[in-house]
Amino acid sequence: MSELTIWTYDWVPEGPRGFVRDLRLRWVCEEAGLPYVVRTVPFDGRETNHLAHQPFGQVPFLSDGELEMFESGAGLLHLARKSDRLMPRDPAGEAATVQWMIAALNSIEMVTVPWWFLKISGDADNALTGWMGMRLDQIEKILGGREWLAAGRFTAADLLMADVLRVSDVRAFGDRPATEAYITRATDRPAFRKAHADQMAHFAAANQKRTGN
Amino acid sequence: MSELTIWTYDWVPEGPRGFVRDLRLRWVCEEAGLPYVVRTVPFDGRETNHLAHQPFGQVPFLSDGELEMFESGAGLLHLARKSDRLMPRDPAGEAATVQWMIAALNSIEMVTVPWWFLKISGDADNALTGWMGMRLDQIEKILGGREWLAAGRFTAADLLMADVLRVSDVRAFGDRPATEAYITRATDRPAFRKAHADQMAHFAAANQKRTGN
Repeated sequence: MSELTIWTYDWVPEGPRGFVRDLRLRWVCEEAGLPYVVRTVPFDGRETNHLAHQPFGQVPFLSDGELEMFESGAGLLHLARKSDRLMPRDPAGEAATVQWMIAALNSIEMVTVPWWFLKISGDADNALTGWMGMRLDQIEKILGGREWLAAGRFTAADLLMADVLRVSDVRAFGDRPATEAYITRATDRPAFRKAHADQMAHFAAANQKRTGN
Repeated sequence: MSELTIWTYDWVPEGPRGFVRDLRLRWVCEEAGLPYVVRTVPFDGRETNHLAHQPFGQVPFLSDGELEMFESGAGLLHLARKSDRLMPRDPAGEAATVQWMIAALNSIEMVTVPWWFLKISGDADNALTGWMGMRLDQIEKILGGREWLAAGRFTAADLLMADVLRVSDVRAFGDRPATEAYITRATDRPAFRKAHADQMAHFAAANQKRTGN
């Protein structure tokens, strides 16, 4: 098997620790039992220093032997296809899994990330609020009727959707018990716990090196 | 081959005609030479009338024999994999194509659609404006150096990115000649022209039936 390398920043401020998207790739490797290493690019000067690998100056990007790809969603699709634990092999299970992965990226995160961005820009009561509430209502309804999104079991779709919802400020939009239980169910998995702890340890060590604290 | 059916609305107001996302699925079928039919669900009551097929009440959704899937991005991935004209078969070409498809959905459209939504809500000078300008600058730089995004030829990545950029108000953010030339190059393709003309004809016929005009 070719070597999998997940590239992330050498350091980030405290706020995003535990939320940097390399976590999605760590998590899928942990779920699938895929060996991987983590390497870094500098956070300082990120706007220009790794554009050859990632034209938006972001992390993560993934290398798999000779292959290299950016966009955590693309990395997830690539890694998930290596294991039927994450991506069912039957056509109906695969279609449902891919469908819900794209829904997480293009129907949910398309609202939750800009809403969060407007909120931290000082505009919590913004024109996206109604759209955000509607999407969270729709997801709550779906999650009220099933344990996992696709194929009757945990798949890469849940990994991605749970991470999208975990980052979102769901509680700011009222009581959504099915969504909260779903996030808990996903993030209680040993693979998530390990991926999360590893990311926190990575940035804590980087911080110690950078600041002496 | 199982029958491909693209589901869209039976009618839409004038504004979105030519932009409804069933166009992405029509376009990929035209590029790949895949036979398909178009069927409809009612626009009126869309919030609840087809939730069994699409939990967000949107179109398009796709059926392929027994398979059914929503999210135009998922439908595109599914259809693109049927033809190497849209999805290269070599691992590097495939990885690059999927990467740029996800970039269109999760790095570009995640800004352009909410920005547009804020603009039509009366807030054109909003907190997403800087982010939108930055992404369009990054895309302009990339498109200045290549004709197509992946594998040195037109792929499903260009189909999706060109549609995302075509809908965006690129010109409102200044002069971006490489992006404008790219949009023109993609939308001059016979497959786009046919998909666009067919969607316009579909909604014009629906309008005549609805209003007598």
